[in-house]
Amino acid sequence: MNVTIIGGGSWATALVKILSEKNNKIKWWLRDEQAIEHIKKHHHNPQYLSSVFLHPSKIKPYHNIKEALKNSDWVILAVPAAFIENVFKDLPLSIFENKKFVSGIKGLIPSSNQLVTEWLSNTLNISKNNIAAIAGPCHAEEIALEKQSYLTIASETIALAEEFASLLACRFVKTSFIADLQGVEYAAVMKNIVALASGITHGLGAGDNFQAVLVSNAILEIERFVDKIAPQKRCINSSAYLGDLLVTAYSQFSRNRSFGNMLGRGYSVKAAQIEMKMVAEGYSATKCIYEINRNFNVEMPILDFTYGILYQNASLLKSFENLKSRLV
Amino acid sequence: MNVTIIGGGSWATALVKILSEKNNKIKWWLRDEQAIEHIKKHHHNPQYLSSVFLHPSKIKPYHNIKEALKNSDWVILAVPAAFIENVFKDLPLSIFENKKFVSGIKGLIPSSNQLVTEWLSNTLNISKNNIAAIAGPCHAEEIALEKQSYLTIASETIALAEEFASLLACRFVKTSFIADLQGVEYAAVMKNIVALASGITHGLGAGDNFQAVLVSNAILEIERFVDKIAPQKRCINSSAYLGDLLVTAYSQFSRNRSFGNMLGRGYSVKAAQIEMKMVAEGYSATKCIYEINRNFNVEMPILDFTYGILYQNASLLKSFENLKSRLV
Repeated sequence: MNVTIIGGGSWATALVKILSEKNNKIKWWLRDEQAIEHIKKHHHNPQYLSSVFLHPSKIKPYHNIKEALKNSDWVILAVPAAFIENVFKDLPLSIFENKKFVSGIKGLIPSSNQLVTEWLSNTLNISKNNIAAIAGPCHAEEIALEKQSYLTIASETIALAEEFASLLACRFVKTSFIADLQGVEYAAVMKNIVALASGITHGLGAGDNFQAVLVSNAILEIERFVDKIAPQKRCINSSAYLGDLLVTAYSQFSRNRSFGNMLGRGYSVKAAQIEMKMVAEGYSATKCIYEINRNFNVEMPILDFTYGILYQNASLLKSFENLKSRLV
Repeated sequence: MNVTIIGGGSWATALVKILSEKNNKIKWWLRDEQAIEHIKKHHHNPQYLSSVFLHPSKIKPYHNIKEALKNSDWVILAVPAAFIENVFKDLPLSIFENKKFVSGIKGLIPSSNQLVTEWLSNTLNISKNNIAAIAGPCHAEEIALEKQSYLTIASETIALAEEFASLLACRFVKTSFIADLQGVEYAAVMKNIVALASGITHGLGAGDNFQAVLVSNAILEIERFVDKIAPQKRCINSSAYLGDLLVTAYSQFSRNRSFGNMLGRGYSVKAAQIEMKMVAEGYSATKCIYEINRNFNVEMPILDFTYGILYQNASLLKSFENLKSRLV
C-alpha cells in the first residue's frame, strides 16, 4: 500500500515505524526541512523518537505536500489539530479524491470546534466512507521501544476501520475496530481535560485516593457527554475510551498534567504557559468542549472545574471545594 | 455511638482516626499487647500510621475481645481475612446480638471461599439487617495525612448503609451508600488479582500502554464476574469498584504489584514470598476466585493468567503471549 503520513512529531514518527513494519511504501510529510535532510542522511528523526531507525527503502520524507500525497491510498494525519488547516490550505480538492483518510489527531479544530474527521468531511469533501480515526492508549515513546500496545480504529464505515486495523497491526501492536467515530474522537479530546484537572488537584494537595475518584468520575462524565452528543451503543470501558483516559491521567509525563499542576500550585495561566514554553492540548479542549456543551447541558463537574480555573479566573480553593462536593 | 474497631494495622488505625473525628466512643481491639501499652502511654500506634494522634479521651485500646465488644453498637472489622475466624473463636454467639457489623476487610475467608459478610451471617449468625461493608479507594496512609478521600458503604439493608455512611463522614472523608454488598466485596478482592497481573506483566517488560489496556480489560472482567455471581443493577465505574481498582493497580506501593513484579522477573513464588517476608493478599484471592469461578465459567483472561503462574507453574512467556492475545 502507498501510505502518506502527515506530521513530524513523536506520534507521526511512531505511526511511520508501525506502518513500515509491513511492506508499505511510506511517503512522510514533515514541515521541518532540516529534519528531512537529517532523516535522508541518517535515517533517524533528529528531534522525536530519535532512537527509531527509519528504513530508507520503505520511508521517504517529503517537504512538498502535493508530492507527498501523489498516488497514496491512505493519508494518515498526525499533526496538532490547530495546524491541520494550514497543512492542506491552497490545495485543489481534486487532490484528495479516492484517498482514504485516517486521523491520528486527538484534538478539535480550535477555530470551529469541529472534530478533525468532521472537518475532513465538511472542508475537504472527503466521503464518510473514506474517513477513520485511530484511538486507544498509546505513548509514542513505548512504540519506539516496541512495547506491546493496542490501538482501535473507528469509522462510520466498519469495513474501512477493519481494513486499516489490519494494515496497522504488527508484531507489537494489536488492533481492533469499532463503528464509533465521534465517540472515540470526543473521548480522546476530553481525556486531556481530565489530565489538566488531575494536575490542578494534585497541585492543590490531593493524593492517590482523590485521583482514583476523579478518574472514575471522569469516565462517567465522558460517557454522559458522548452518549448525548453521539448516541449509540458503546462500551465506554474499552481500551479506546477508558484505556486512553488511564494512560493519560496516570502519566507522569503528560504535558496537560504538568500544566495543571503548575496552576494548582498557584501559577497564573499565562505564567504556566510561559514556563512550559508551549500550550497544553487540554487548554483549548476545555474551551471547545465547554462551548459545545452549552447546547447539550450535560452534567460535567470536571469540565466546569477546569474551565473556571482556566478561563474564568475562579478561586482555586473554592473551585476545589465545589469539585469535591460534586464527585462521588 | 459506641464503636468497636477490630485490628491493629494501617487500615484499622485509619478507621480509628476517621471515626474519632466525630464524638464516638471508640474501643479498639489490638492483638499486640506492646502496641496497646504504647498507645496508652504515647497516643500513637507504634508500627502503623504512627504519625496519627490517638485522642485518649475518645479512643481506648483493648486486648480482651469480650471487653472490647461490651456495649458497642457498631463493630468494625479491619484484620486480614485469614485472621478473622481466630479473633472471634470461642466466643458465645449471644455476645454478637444487637450489634451492627461493618466489614472493612478486603478479602475472602481462605478456608471456605466465603465473603467476610457471608461468614458473619453464616457463622456468627448476624442478621443481614446488621451487616455492611466499607468500599472505595483508600490508602490508609492518605487518611493519616487527611487527604480528601471517598468511601462507599454497602449493605443489603440500605438504611444501615446510610446510617454508617453518615457516622463515617468527616472533614476529609466523603461517604455514600449503595445496596450492592456482594458486588463491592468481590470487586475489592479481585482488584488484588489485577494488581498481581499488573506487577507480573511489568516485570516481563510491559509498559504504560499495556497497563492501561490491562486495567480497562480488568474492570470489564470484574463486571462480568460480579454480574454473574450477584446479578443486580450496578454502575461498575463508581469509585467503589473502578476507583478501588485504580488506586490499587496504579499504586507504586501495592504489595500485590511488587510480588507480581518479582514473579515477572523470574523469581519463583516461594522465593518471592520469602523475599517479601509476607504473603500478598492477591495470592490467596487468585485461588479463591478461580475456584468459585469453576461453578460460573465467567470468561476471565486476567484471572487465568495469574492463576497459571501462581499455581500451575505455567511458562511466563507463554502465559504473557496468551494474555496479550486475549485482551482487546
